Amino acid sequence: MAATHELIYPIAQWSVTEDQLNVPLVPGDETVFALANGYMGIRGTFEEQSVGYAPGSFINGYYETEPIVYGESAYGFAPNRQRMVALADATLMELSVNGFPLDLTTGTIHEYSRMLRMKTGVLDRHLRWESPDGTIVEIEARRLVSFRRQHVMAIHWVCTVVNQPSQIRITSVVRSRPRARVGADDPRLGAALSREALMLGKRDADARVATIRYKTRNSGFDVITAVANVIETEVDYHRILVCSQQEVGHGFDLSLGPGQRVEVTKYVANYTSLDYPRKRLTGLARQEVEAARRARFSGLSAEQSNYLGAFWSRSDVIVEGDDSLQQSIRFNIFHLLQAAGRNGRTSVAAKGLTGAGYEGHYFWDTEIYVMPFFTYTNPGIARALLEYRYRTLNRARERARVLRHRGALYPWRTINGDEASAYFPAGTAQYHINADIIYAMRKYVVATGDRWFLLKRGAEMLFETARFWVDLGCFIDGKGFCINEVTGPDEYTALVNNNTFTNLMASDHLSYAVEVFDEMRHHDRAMLDPLIDRIGLEESEVDEWRRAAEETYVPFDEGRGLHPQDDSFFDREVWDFENTPPDHYPLLLHYHPLTIYRHQVLKQPDLVLALFLQGDRFSLSEKRRDFAYYDPITTGDSSLSPCIQSIVAAEIGETELAYRYFMQTARMDLDDINGNVKDGVHTAAMAGTWLSMVYGFAGMRDYHGALSFQPILPREWTRLQFRILWRGTLLEITLGPEETTYRLPNGGQVDLTHNGDPVSLSGTGGVDRPNPADDQVRTG
Amino acid sequence: MAATHELIYPIAQWSVTEDQLNVPLVPGDETVFALANGYMGIRGTFEEQSVGYAPGSFINGYYETEPIVYGESAYGFAPNRQRMVALADATLMELSVNGFPLDLTTGTIHEYSRMLRMKTGVLDRHLRWESPDGTIVEIEARRLVSFRRQHVMAIHWVCTVVNQPSQIRITSVVRSRPRARVGADDPRLGAALSREALMLGKRDADARVATIRYKTRNSGFDVITAVANVIETEVDYHRILVCSQQEVGHGFDLSLGPGQRVEVTKYVANYTSLDYPRKRLTGLARQEVEAARRARFSGLSAEQSNYLGAFWSRSDVIVEGDDSLQQSIRFNIFHLLQAAGRNGRTSVAAKGLTGAGYEGHYFWDTEIYVMPFFTYTNPGIARALLEYRYRTLNRARERARVLRHRGALYPWRTINGDEASAYFPAGTAQYHINADIIYAMRKYVVATGDRWFLLKRGAEMLFETARFWVDLGCFIDGKGFCINEVTGPDEYTALVNNNTFTNLMASDHLSYAVEVFDEMRHHDRAMLDPLIDRIGLEESEVDEWRRAAEETYVPFDEGRGLHPQDDSFFDREVWDFENTPPDHYPLLLHYHPLTIYRHQVLKQPDLVLALFLQGDRFSLSEKRRDFAYYDPITTGDSSLSPCIQSIVAAEIGETELAYRYFMQTARMDLDDINGNVKDGVHTAAMAGTWLSMVYGFAGMRDYHGALSFQPILPREWTRLQFRILWRGTLLEITLGPEETTYRLPNGGQVDLTHNGDPVSLSGTGGVDRPNPADDQVRTG
Repeated sequence: MAATHELIYPIAQWSVTEDQLNVPLVPGDETVFALANGYMGIRGTFEEQSVGYAPGSFINGYYETEPIVYGESAYGFAPNRQRMVALADATLMELSVNGFPLDLTTGTIHEYSRMLRMKTGVLDRHLRWESPDGTIVEIEARRLVSFRRQHVMAIHWVCTVVNQPSQIRITSVVRSRPRARVGADDPRLGAALSREALMLGKRDADARVATIRYKTRNSGFDVITAVANVIETEVDYHRILVCSQQEVGHGFDLSLGPGQRVEVTKYVANYTSLDYPRKRLTGLARQEVEAARRARFSGLSAEQSNYLGAFWSRSDVIVEGDDSLQQSIRFNIFHLLQAAGRNGRTSVAAKGLTGAGYEGHYFWDTEIYVMPFFTYTNPGIARALLEYRYRTLNRARERARVLRHRGALYPWRTINGDEASAYFPAGTAQYHINADIIYAMRKYVVATGDRWFLLKRGAEMLFETARFWVDLGCFIDGKGFCINEVTGPDEYTALVNNNTFTNLMASDHLSYAVEVFDEMRHHDRAMLDPLIDRIGLEESEVDEWRRAAEETYVPFDEGRGLHPQDDSFFDREVWDFENTPPDHYPLLLHYHPLTIYRHQVLKQPDLVLALFLQGDRFSLSEKRRDFAYYDPITTGDSSLSPCIQSIVAAEIGETELAYRYFMQTARMDLDDINGNVKDGVHTAAMAGTWLSMVYGFAGMRDYHGALSFQPILPREWTRLQFRILWRGTLLEITLGPEETTYRLPNGGQVDLTHNGDPVSLSGTGGVDRPNPADDQVRTG
Repeated sequence: MAATHELIYPIAQWSVTEDQLNVPLVPGDETVFALANGYMGIRGTFEEQSVGYAPGSFINGYYETEPIVYGESAYGFAPNRQRMVALADATLMELSVNGFPLDLTTGTIHEYSRMLRMKTGVLDRHLRWESPDGTIVEIEARRLVSFRRQHVMAIHWVCTVVNQPSQIRITSVVRSRPRARVGADDPRLGAALSREALMLGKRDADARVATIRYKTRNSGFDVITAVANVIETEVDYHRILVCSQQEVGHGFDLSLGPGQRVEVTKYVANYTSLDYPRKRLTGLARQEVEAARRARFSGLSAEQSNYLGAFWSRSDVIVEGDDSLQQSIRFNIFHLLQAAGRNGRTSVAAKGLTGAGYEGHYFWDTEIYVMPFFTYTNPGIARALLEYRYRTLNRARERARVLRHRGALYPWRTINGDEASAYFPAGTAQYHINADIIYAMRKYVVATGDRWFLLKRGAEMLFETARFWVDLGCFIDGKGFCINEVTGPDEYTALVNNNTFTNLMASDHLSYAVEVFDEMRHHDRAMLDPLIDRIGLEESEVDEWRRAAEETYVPFDEGRGLHPQDDSFFDREVWDFENTPPDHYPLLLHYHPLTIYRHQVLKQPDLVLALFLQGDRFSLSEKRRDFAYYDPITTGDSSLSPCIQSIVAAEIGETELAYRYFMQTARMDLDDINGNVKDGVHTAAMAGTWLSMVYGFAGMRDYHGALSFQPILPREWTRLQFRILWRGTLLEITLGPEETTYRLPNGGQVDLTHNGDPVSLSGTGGVDRPNPADDQVRTG
């Protein structure tokens, strides 16, 4: 499957490069070359923007609201949309040469290249262009969005005149009101807002700093963008202040002879009223821009390198035997780092900060796909993502109240914590979101030992969401605790009873609630009592949780020896794959939901995801049978599919299949496998790359808090190496074709099992263990 | 239950009267006193409209379209809304007396009354009003919407000055652009259009006739309203032509002394481009208004009486022992006559032509609730309603094609034949609409013997819709022919497998298709062959229909001895009625659909409706058990409920319960039981009154084409008498407390069974038979 995709970018270990302008690729390039720091992001547009698809600068969690219009509304439908809005564009650096604007569609391009440098976190650009009057100029531009200074981005831009004296004008501005492009026909993008979201406020410019202010029309969030432009050149220049209705910034007029150059460094800072009082925004933005200017571009750049050096030392994954794969693994990890909010009031949007697809919403993708990477490599970020959920707990309580349920129900898709799904069968009905969040939190607590978070924040989320399950479900004679009228992860089946995935996740959730409650009762009474008071928890509720957890109904079809996806799954006809033309995929764009729901056909793994997340609830032979049944009827119409298919295929010994699915997830965006990278990266699939390597090929699990591995190296590779933090200790795992080496690079002590056998590590020396043979795994 | 509602209007046999102005009742009065003729309707507004709720003149099938906005759209969602739009208001006759406008909120009302006369089809009004300057005037107004002349309405209006000389100005106009009022929060009303639907066209006025023309903005239908005003008075008057942006018509200035009077007759005709070429509309409307003027009001009124005389002679139902009930029965029947389209391109809107609730859409209400009344009393109208479905067959084919199904799928709600439901779980998923239409057609063919319709129109509809079922369903091992992912009549359960009602109706539908095909093959080859060619029908398809019909899966729970409403119905928890506060009904306004769907709770009968419509598929003891289970969990949140509950209760011998449900349906609008009569009458519930009397108390059935009765008279009454047409012969049935009399008023020959015993009628003499005792029925 991977072989069917041609490489778009040349192979390189630590960079993504393009060395010619290919106009059809420009939209996708804007995503691939996007820079972000979890707080803000800019798409990989050209500074002069003569060619472009959807320029966009985004701030994580900065959104506009609007009432959702329903064709036919009903009680409890989510009332308001939220949409991440593109801010004023601060990447613009326009150049005119003897009156000719630098434009990639006119004149002649002699040299062209861009390079995303993942080790240093900068985007470099080189251009040698001849204007229609024969003037040749050379542009070198470098930009960064600072990981150390979340409000800051900077561009260092150099223009050299090559062949003849030239009148040069540079205009470096922030321009208001770019409109995010949205696809009219693709429901995955979300509709445009009905009105321009941003209302322009005060604009101001002096020789040092220019500022522009706006506000979102309905949500009422102020944002201020401050920009400073520093020029260095050997010739005289004339500085122009730009402060119009649409833009602010600085311009420079000068004359350059052959070989002469001008250097402009642009420092930009964004501040919003989501973080600070309105009155302080201008002051803060000016200060930040001044501070960046003092640091100079070289200083910012050095900080960026340091930050990334530390990041990669924990987070890099090395694959030997496939350089193009190595590149995309790093690309994916780099983009995860760029996407993840880390201030406790933001999360990870489905497209990160690289595009406004899915309206910039956060989904379960964060907890089930993205969080494990951070939990095991950058736990501070994982914790910030959990903080975000804690911060929106009151909104989840309110949502449960509106739906006349007890406890708290987290939204299926959201920015601010309110439900924003306008189609409840694949929105609110995906109640499993509650369990997904708790699952991720439990993993975090187990892997980091951060008990303080659990006691201070997690327990409250845990108990309130546990309450919700017990209120939602019911005890049915002969079955046990049932949860009816839900939608599981697979959105090609909706509104069913006893979705096996949901039931297992809820059961696990409830057990954990009981376990934490019991532990707190014995060891943390001082934390528990005020919590009980605050949320009015009765001990009888905990008994209900226990009973529901123990008696949760898990559908199983004895005749088939299979777990049905839900109560009625096997009553449905299998989709007629044979007579479905290839151009009718993804099915959701070609068939009515009723037709899809009526059949056995999956958008993405559902029961198979349970085989992974709740793996200790299934025997290996059950996993084999279930996987063999479900995998062929899974379309993979969701980008969330292949990584999960890969992990379970690896576990049951289908290594080749695991490898094929892995390659789909690993190169999804660099190869634009789904054809929509232009609208943003597939953050969950990027994280899925890491999941597939760590949980799939290395076979890592942590059932009951015990770390275990069952490694298999695909025969296409000679080595796979990665590191994880296990309760504060750095553990390096190196899979070779025959054996696996476990090592603690910084020393410490870790116990684990390898293929079921205990391994005790201490000090910095490595321990080798032979990999299980394929058939060994198959009988495991 | 009926006892809890106070009578709003005094009891009268053939009229509905009010004798004082009660402002809170004005909105409902506009509905109750609405006049219509199946083609057009006017709400019961005051001519001077100083007090009013939602003035509206409607033309059946005249609608505006607009794209449906979905919060989250998907493939195959209905693209466009349709909404019946209120036309220019032609009921206005404004009066000013010495400069004071006649206004019911100022001055003094000395006398006031309105009377809807159901025998003659006119609305009378009397008013004696004193203006702020002490002038007393008396107004007598009578209006009608002509049954004989579908384009014509007329108002005869007389003003007499009582006490002092007065300057009088009368303004009789057609005023453009009334806005239909819609409720913001009630999903049953439908949302307003986003823009004014009607675009004003040419306006014109001469001394004889004034005309105003508009067009719907998107659907592009022209309508022209022509108005003539004829004045008669003994004094001189000055005629004013009104032709402004907003209105056209005539005004009259005159001086009247005490005892002097002026009479104005207003003739109005509406023509639309739905019926005639655009160019001809003005000419036709002018001609029609001139013809009405020649007939004079008295002539129109005489025609109206004649028409209604003939109607009532076939259609009246007499109940002795409850005068208020007698009144409401006639009121309901009268409104049915007013509601039903009869030109073959229109049907019966949920609110008739009395209001824009439910956007003026046609639902299954027409076929399952309304049509039996017409089939058995006015078969020409029944046939026109079927013609409407035939006329929209191509749109049903196109809908099936879009959904990638074979055959034809009729829309759940529509005006023009395109699906207009914006919520597919309670829209498109109600596939039973196809079977409902065929069911009504079969009844029509059986009762009338109109084989020509069957061969020429019906067979094509029948075969195309049969095709759809076979394509929709599938054969599941161990079950048979299953139909998954559907919604039955009960909208409190959605998207289930094997809804028993739907399966039985589909099976019946398919059997009928096979039967008609076989019959045609033997007897009507000349009709069948071209049809086969036209629709490309293969004989193998008919075999499939046969097999599906025979092997249709009918869910039955052996343990409970009950038919589940669907495969998973008994897996659900029963709704907690005990803890549901009374103000939380209707549930749909207080609970999320997911909560409702998750429980055993019914909006309206579903399986119980099958007990009635497919009664020969159930034993009496099954009916008893099923009814006993489902009736207590039916909320009756739909106005379609009580009539069906009444019929089945009557059949199983629960006569008292049947009576109580009957009283809810019979007086629903006159007593405003649901509190929303202001938005229009409940046409289906009105028809349900007839169903309950005929199918319920008289126990009429026509299984396999044989007419049978099983009468029981509620002990509150002394007599129930009605007439039906059975294959062209008028049959009168009179239920007394002890016996039932069958009679053929016009002679002829009819065979029927009474309580299982054959009765042969011929000539005009009556035959008496003793009613079965209650316990006899119970063991039947």
